[in-house]
Amino acid sequence: MDSISVGSGSMPLIGLGLWKIEPADTANAVVEAIRAGYRHLDSAADYGNEAALGEGIARAINQGLCRREDLWVTSKLWNTYHDPAHVEAACQRSLDDLGLEYLDLYLVHFPIAQPFVDFAERYPPGWITDTNADEPRMEVAKVPLSATWATMEALVDRGLVREIGVCNYNSGLLHDLMTYANRPPAMLQIESHPYLSQDALLRTAADYGIPVTAFSPLGALSYVALDMANGSESVLNEAIVVSAAQRLKKTPAQVVLRWAVQRGTAVIPKTSKAERLIENRSIFDFQLSDEEMSAISALNRNRRFNDPGVFCEAAFNRFHAIYD
Amino acid sequence: MDSISVGSGSMPLIGLGLWKIEPADTANAVVEAIRAGYRHLDSAADYGNEAALGEGIARAINQGLCRREDLWVTSKLWNTYHDPAHVEAACQRSLDDLGLEYLDLYLVHFPIAQPFVDFAERYPPGWITDTNADEPRMEVAKVPLSATWATMEALVDRGLVREIGVCNYNSGLLHDLMTYANRPPAMLQIESHPYLSQDALLRTAADYGIPVTAFSPLGALSYVALDMANGSESVLNEAIVVSAAQRLKKTPAQVVLRWAVQRGTAVIPKTSKAERLIENRSIFDFQLSDEEMSAISALNRNRRFNDPGVFCEAAFNRFHAIYD
Repeated sequence: MDSISVGSGSMPLIGLGLWKIEPADTANAVVEAIRAGYRHLDSAADYGNEAALGEGIARAINQGLCRREDLWVTSKLWNTYHDPAHVEAACQRSLDDLGLEYLDLYLVHFPIAQPFVDFAERYPPGWITDTNADEPRMEVAKVPLSATWATMEALVDRGLVREIGVCNYNSGLLHDLMTYANRPPAMLQIESHPYLSQDALLRTAADYGIPVTAFSPLGALSYVALDMANGSESVLNEAIVVSAAQRLKKTPAQVVLRWAVQRGTAVIPKTSKAERLIENRSIFDFQLSDEEMSAISALNRNRRFNDPGVFCEAAFNRFHAIYD
Repeated sequence: MDSISVGSGSMPLIGLGLWKIEPADTANAVVEAIRAGYRHLDSAADYGNEAALGEGIARAINQGLCRREDLWVTSKLWNTYHDPAHVEAACQRSLDDLGLEYLDLYLVHFPIAQPFVDFAERYPPGWITDTNADEPRMEVAKVPLSATWATMEALVDRGLVREIGVCNYNSGLLHDLMTYANRPPAMLQIESHPYLSQDALLRTAADYGIPVTAFSPLGALSYVALDMANGSESVLNEAIVVSAAQRLKKTPAQVVLRWAVQRGTAVIPKTSKAERLIENRSIFDFQLSDEEMSAISALNRNRRFNDPGVFCEAAFNRFHAIYD
């Protein structure tokens, strides 16, 4: 079984994460991914490559590699468009860039609202909304998450998106969301890997029947180049991961991805290398033992790499904390 | 300076925490505390000793130890009374038990709503609302935090409370609260001690101008008897704490409390021992060096003792996670 139910749909457990794929490389990477069997593409306005992703999707469809309805395409509402006045336009902008008539899943990217930045001024606008300020810092806007969610629900009614959900919510925010949602979230997407196993949050989501997608499933890899992690923090060097890989004749990355899907989460590893695309999906022909599963889970050290509010000294004074 | 501004009032930095003081001991403990100079009492409906606290306050006033207006009395709204229909009655019940006409500060105790339990059925009702269930577990209710907050604001308008605030909110919940609050919270009360220094959350609160009270400022002490910590987890045994205490001729507990107030947080240590009452307040005649402050802060290990959703295996299956 390599898919999970998400709302009334079925989402492949392995998706291609589009974060940090260069726009110039994106269309080719997507065509190759679809050729390699990927049918789940995890995008976001903030990644700055949705037009290129759309080009890749169109090419793959034109080449007969897949049909639109074979794909599961996720995108995300950026912080600056939380105001009900901007939610639909932001979604439509993603649809236009992607060349699609609907999204399979649309997620609130972060549980924090920021001031609106006009598309014409800068797109995507990123975390620093007033780039001309003397001391640019992350600004917040007074838009309740409940108002944003109500407008997300309306997108489903209008047919722009099939399912809606949230990213980067913790248990407290999820409890509150469940009190006011008319349509409960069909997905929770969070950072998770063996160093951030998120057991309690996974349990909260499970209690509410919400499936979970783990981003950065391989841990530090994506963050070293951003100075948000150092190379020694790779979970792929852990003895239990290496020994399981040897036993199973798989790579350490495959073991870590298998751990994630075997515990029930979808994963969206990013790669634009052809051999990695295949490697990352080839995790359904083996099983980790219960002992291996437990030992990998025990690597947890609550290490969050993707925390805009904490990741480096410079950001510490310019960003608001989100998770703590 | 042994007070901080809280809204339009001034709150003593050291308060007596009433949690886990036995009702039979409470009135005497409070009279002794007031005699020892305490003017800040941190109570909650959930502690089950508000009537006894009220008796102690009345006795102290009758004995001429203080006047009502010299005291800062905090109480907290329990989870089962989050519904706007019950907030005022819950506050009035605390006022009646305490024998007071107003509270100086009223806090939302936890950012989670639970089903209403009638006062006549059980008071305070605790975390398990349906005690007759086959498998009693923590239940949640569909009351948005925004609805509860709006009713908290009305309590100020009605004169029942002077200031309102929240406990156990994390940064994400605080950001959201700040989007819908007409009256911003005048206080954030959270668990904090050297093993849970909460730097990011303190920064979030500071960014919004919200003062912070640290509960369980001495760490594990309160939790060993509850099986929520083991004795070896005491921060009072840390070398840096012991050496600072020796240098200053103070106790390790005084060093840890001094660290908390020197970084700007109020503290509410609990004790019913006369000598401890005095010891815990005698922290304004010395200073920790910058090096000592940094070294104690560096003890942080994100160790949360008070997590109803995680603290023990039995609760793990019966409680919802709140913080993660």
